[in-house]
Amino acid sequence: MKRILLFTVFSLLLCSSCKKEPATSETVENVSSLTETSKENGFAIVIHGGAGTIKKENMTSEQEVAYRTKLQEALDAGYKVLEEGGSSLDAVQKSVNIMEDSPLFNAGKGAVFNSAGKNELDASIMDGKTLNSGAIAGVKQIKNPINAARIVMDSTRHVMMAGKGAEDFAKLNGIEFEDDNYFHTEKRYNQLLKAQEREKVVLDHSALIIDTKELIDDHKYGTVGAVAIDKEGNIAAATSTGGMTNKKYGRVGDSPIIGAGTYANNKTCGVSATGTGEYFIRTLATHEASSLMQYRNLSLKESLDGVMKQIGDLGGSGGLIALDRNGNVAWSFNSTGMYRGYKKSSGENVVKFYEE
Amino acid sequence: MKRILLFTVFSLLLCSSCKKEPATSETVENVSSLTETSKENGFAIVIHGGAGTIKKENMTSEQEVAYRTKLQEALDAGYKVLEEGGSSLDAVQKSVNIMEDSPLFNAGKGAVFNSAGKNELDASIMDGKTLNSGAIAGVKQIKNPINAARIVMDSTRHVMMAGKGAEDFAKLNGIEFEDDNYFHTEKRYNQLLKAQEREKVVLDHSALIIDTKELIDDHKYGTVGAVAIDKEGNIAAATSTGGMTNKKYGRVGDSPIIGAGTYANNKTCGVSATGTGEYFIRTLATHEASSLMQYRNLSLKESLDGVMKQIGDLGGSGGLIALDRNGNVAWSFNSTGMYRGYKKSSGENVVKFYEE
Repeated sequence: MKRILLFTVFSLLLCSSCKKEPATSETVENVSSLTETSKENGFAIVIHGGAGTIKKENMTSEQEVAYRTKLQEALDAGYKVLEEGGSSLDAVQKSVNIMEDSPLFNAGKGAVFNSAGKNELDASIMDGKTLNSGAIAGVKQIKNPINAARIVMDSTRHVMMAGKGAEDFAKLNGIEFEDDNYFHTEKRYNQLLKAQEREKVVLDHSALIIDTKELIDDHKYGTVGAVAIDKEGNIAAATSTGGMTNKKYGRVGDSPIIGAGTYANNKTCGVSATGTGEYFIRTLATHEASSLMQYRNLSLKESLDGVMKQIGDLGGSGGLIALDRNGNVAWSFNSTGMYRGYKKSSGENVVKFYEE
Repeated sequence: MKRILLFTVFSLLLCSSCKKEPATSETVENVSSLTETSKENGFAIVIHGGAGTIKKENMTSEQEVAYRTKLQEALDAGYKVLEEGGSSLDAVQKSVNIMEDSPLFNAGKGAVFNSAGKNELDASIMDGKTLNSGAIAGVKQIKNPINAARIVMDSTRHVMMAGKGAEDFAKLNGIEFEDDNYFHTEKRYNQLLKAQEREKVVLDHSALIIDTKELIDDHKYGTVGAVAIDKEGNIAAATSTGGMTNKKYGRVGDSPIIGAGTYANNKTCGVSATGTGEYFIRTLATHEASSLMQYRNLSLKESLDGVMKQIGDLGGSGGLIALDRNGNVAWSFNSTGMYRGYKKSSGENVVKFYEE
């Protein structure tokens, strides 16, 4: 039985004096002037570090401090980019980098192991202003997969690259690589051994169905994501993951798929997803959230809630973080917890893990 | 300058006596009884063999006959499945198989060559009743990629598999493989040589921008797809492609991406796309068509038109085929032509290539 937990905070309403003037032929030509007039708009960033069985009784105070510190560091880094007038694209990339570099999350350094004992990484990023997008899937040894996704977006006509070809492209473009040792964390390796042992047991019993909840908790735990709106009112979203422990057959989840794991559109909102990826693909979760806002005039909170209802009805589990073009922040998840937080130019700063 | 050509045909309206009774607690339990009551509903299939510069003055009468014959064969094969009470999933798979086995289209046997001189194949399929989906990306030597996508859907918890892992999975599941010679067609190989020559010329001139239209015409030409509704009212959609000539870096286009190249939902419609894939990803073209029907109450024709407008505005080119839950068939494209056709239980049978 799943429950959908929602938490939405409405940010400061943009004061009417800060609104962009209706574009005239002059102002349209003069982009920097437009930029100046909107400089004082509010900005915000929201992040997640994965959804799953996250309960207070299972966490030591040391673990709580570690997660809280790292999430705050990621928020602060992205926020600083926004505060200094940087783009939402740079902000989400920066926040995701901090989480990719931490062993706490299933992305970059902390990525889980596939069935061959390798760390296979996926990431995607989207620019809500232009709908430009970049994604990489099934790459190995790339320190910060979101940086490779960004290069695909910025330097090619393509949206998605996969496997060896994507690695070759990243190398050509100066993306940082690390050897396998960098990605080897004891926690993740033990998860692989446990998953392989369980699979053996499952095969021994000829059982074809593995409890979905168990799979979620152990296999998909800690995908990271960020969504931001900058002073220009541009929205960006980014997601990075190591996928599922013990994954086989080149399985691709939702994280590198535009409209499933990541979506951003200045007309509506930006969204990043985490959870049982297949359900987020089948519902086009992040694009669906945008469509519910755009075509049904739902609020950001109602839209995320509606998508998680669709996912829950299909049997899926996980969560979404988002912010809309007015700087409202929302999240929705049907797991017991989600590492998450936001920081806004109004001064609000929140980091949470559990149902609350 | 692009023009959007639309062509929509409204099928027989389902007679009110054939409509499903409102579900009571009894009928919900008794699925087979529900099935019986809807047995006499109309059924239909619509297919495409790619969009691009397809002009009457460039086609010989022999070529016209060859394309017309093969498209009719694909329609007939899918229609026969539906007529005999088979599922829309089986019907679209069958129609796509016929086109995959023909050297005329850029899928299966007729797939284009990547930059390494290999044929890399993508495909996806979706069940509108359950939203179950299957996709494979970047696989080699699989005779009928859509069959592998179907196996991913039917036999795993996953939606998408890519590369070597997907090939391993397909082999384990008895999917038919062919050696490279099977996929070697002179026409496609010459296209590769031409593309590589042009790239060399382009590099010699340090020109970074290649005319998009030229790229479309030579690189992406003949992706195949099918959408069907069966006697039970279930919609399915499928798409299969060899991607872009001379493609590099493991580029993944829209064809294997659910919501971009392929989407089906019994609540609304089924859609298959062909064209400059990146624009169909960024707009989530096939999911967007469904959303416009569901949330804006647009007709199928209006929805496809709206999506092609979005794609055209971004600079993209190509087309969509679709049918809705009432058996209406529609297509929309902004290229000069699209190989396409439909066949309905009302007796209508149409095959077209050009603007008309």
